[in-house]
Amino acid sequence: MPEADAAGRPAPFRRLALVGLGLIGSSIARGAREAGLAREIVAIDRDAGVRERVRALGIADVATADLAAGVAGADLVVLCVPVGAVGPVAAAMAGALAPGAIVSDVGSVKGAVVAAAAPHLPGHVAFVPAHPVAGTEHSGPDAGFASLFHGRWCILTPPEGTAPAAVARVRAFWEGLGSVVETMTPAHHDLVLAITSHVPHLIAYNIVGTAADLEAVTQSEVIKFSAGGFRDFTRIAASDPTMWRDVFLTNKDAVLEMLGRFNEDLAALARAIRWDDGEALHALFTRTRAIRRGIVAVGQETAEPDFGRRGAGPGPKAPG
Amino acid sequence: MPEADAAGRPAPFRRLALVGLGLIGSSIARGAREAGLAREIVAIDRDAGVRERVRALGIADVATADLAAGVAGADLVVLCVPVGAVGPVAAAMAGALAPGAIVSDVGSVKGAVVAAAAPHLPGHVAFVPAHPVAGTEHSGPDAGFASLFHGRWCILTPPEGTAPAAVARVRAFWEGLGSVVETMTPAHHDLVLAITSHVPHLIAYNIVGTAADLEAVTQSEVIKFSAGGFRDFTRIAASDPTMWRDVFLTNKDAVLEMLGRFNEDLAALARAIRWDDGEALHALFTRTRAIRRGIVAVGQETAEPDFGRRGAGPGPKAPG
Repeated sequence: MPEADAAGRPAPFRRLALVGLGLIGSSIARGAREAGLAREIVAIDRDAGVRERVRALGIADVATADLAAGVAGADLVVLCVPVGAVGPVAAAMAGALAPGAIVSDVGSVKGAVVAAAAPHLPGHVAFVPAHPVAGTEHSGPDAGFASLFHGRWCILTPPEGTAPAAVARVRAFWEGLGSVVETMTPAHHDLVLAITSHVPHLIAYNIVGTAADLEAVTQSEVIKFSAGGFRDFTRIAASDPTMWRDVFLTNKDAVLEMLGRFNEDLAALARAIRWDDGEALHALFTRTRAIRRGIVAVGQETAEPDFGRRGAGPGPKAPG
Repeated sequence: MPEADAAGRPAPFRRLALVGLGLIGSSIARGAREAGLAREIVAIDRDAGVRERVRALGIADVATADLAAGVAGADLVVLCVPVGAVGPVAAAMAGALAPGAIVSDVGSVKGAVVAAAAPHLPGHVAFVPAHPVAGTEHSGPDAGFASLFHGRWCILTPPEGTAPAAVARVRAFWEGLGSVVETMTPAHHDLVLAITSHVPHLIAYNIVGTAADLEAVTQSEVIKFSAGGFRDFTRIAASDPTMWRDVFLTNKDAVLEMLGRFNEDLAALARAIRWDDGEALHALFTRTRAIRRGIVAVGQETAEPDFGRRGAGPGPKAPG
């Protein structure tokens, strides 16, 4: 099979099987169809409500609960389930995989995914784990959209010995979805994402919980005056609970290591406040601006003030 | 002087003196002019570069470095300087204030502002501290815009015994700028804002600093893969360093109290991760979604996924 057509586009997969049609799975379905990356798309989900939405949205050719039938004949199978479910799903579908099929996933943790899935997969398939660094705080098949991966990084973590041709096809697939692809080891991935994603989610969940539990400040006050900074954290803390539970449990070591460093730094900051060390505070607050500029400069963020809430900013209902 | 015209609009102030023309001061100047809230606007700033920008932008009638001359004859003086500068500015301008003038401010801390300013102000002026809960991560006169306060809360914390007529005029002024106004005690304000604004800023500054200091993960990796959650924190951590240094030093007690609670909760969360308590994690992550829905429901946030970055989403430059 040719790897690209005359226009340089990668040859489409014959049959793409997506297991799990939440935000990510349904966005892949939409994006793959829009970019012509697969001739047939099979949506596999054990939730009847999800299958119904998939059919109503028309984002796949087939929607089924039957994992073995769904992956049979597929040349690309992408697991879009919470990290904790990857092992059981791999075990359950292993016998039905076609020779030469490529298996991939979209999990936010890679070491645990490789450890959980690889032992179940037969030798005649290639396993190319992937992590698209993209998402929103919304969940489910209706939350997906074709451009979710446009301009976002996708990290591949192929285990040693994976066929280079399979890695190249998965890379082309993600580039076809609009991503920029990078490859690294599972262990390094898990360390990088612990600080850029997992710990930020943990502390966002945590402060929203702390705020909800206060006695001296009502929940209504927290909600009303959230524009001072808090509301940005609530966006992250509205992410899918099952997915994030699995992330923390499966990337435990890296998360606890990064959290330990965060805590040490926070203790130093609290001490600077207690002892009126304004210089230490000012020095840190100046240094952190540079990182923001870097993120805007490489196009991973808009330069719009306040996330562009200006103008489109919502008006409050009458108070009380 | 009538308090409102035939259309129900508040009578304009004769002369509005703004001390400090940063993001907030310059936004007040723009908004007050747009809404006709003052016949004359005097911009007072000790920074020659700022005065030059104010003149170039045409957002005030006069731009001066002379505090006493600037506030003379003003019936409303609004201090838009970092909280730590409020006391010295109040002392320096006290002798020049017109009888019957109203003095206000925009500080994010209110107890310390009242303590620092009130002793200097003569008995013939009214002091009505205010805190508009609005802002962006950008600073300086060019960052301001007239609609910054639209649909945002403004909290007034008049000390006991403040003339009700003065409070009413300041309320009408902020409503004229588009805000919804609420009144509370300085102490309660400082507690509410500690959790909705000050601690979120502190932990955002902190995690951005932690990420910058890692050896195993490069700064370039942190920047590249920030879309996983981290970049939201960098927006907050790009806020004005001097303003925020002063906030933490002047609202020390409430910040350290709220930070203590945050730390207790975070320790419990770390323990749940270490001991594989998935149920505890899932329960918290489910609970926090409700707060987000509340914030969207009262109009303090857009319901757009990912802050509406979709569509308008930036594309990355070629990697490497």
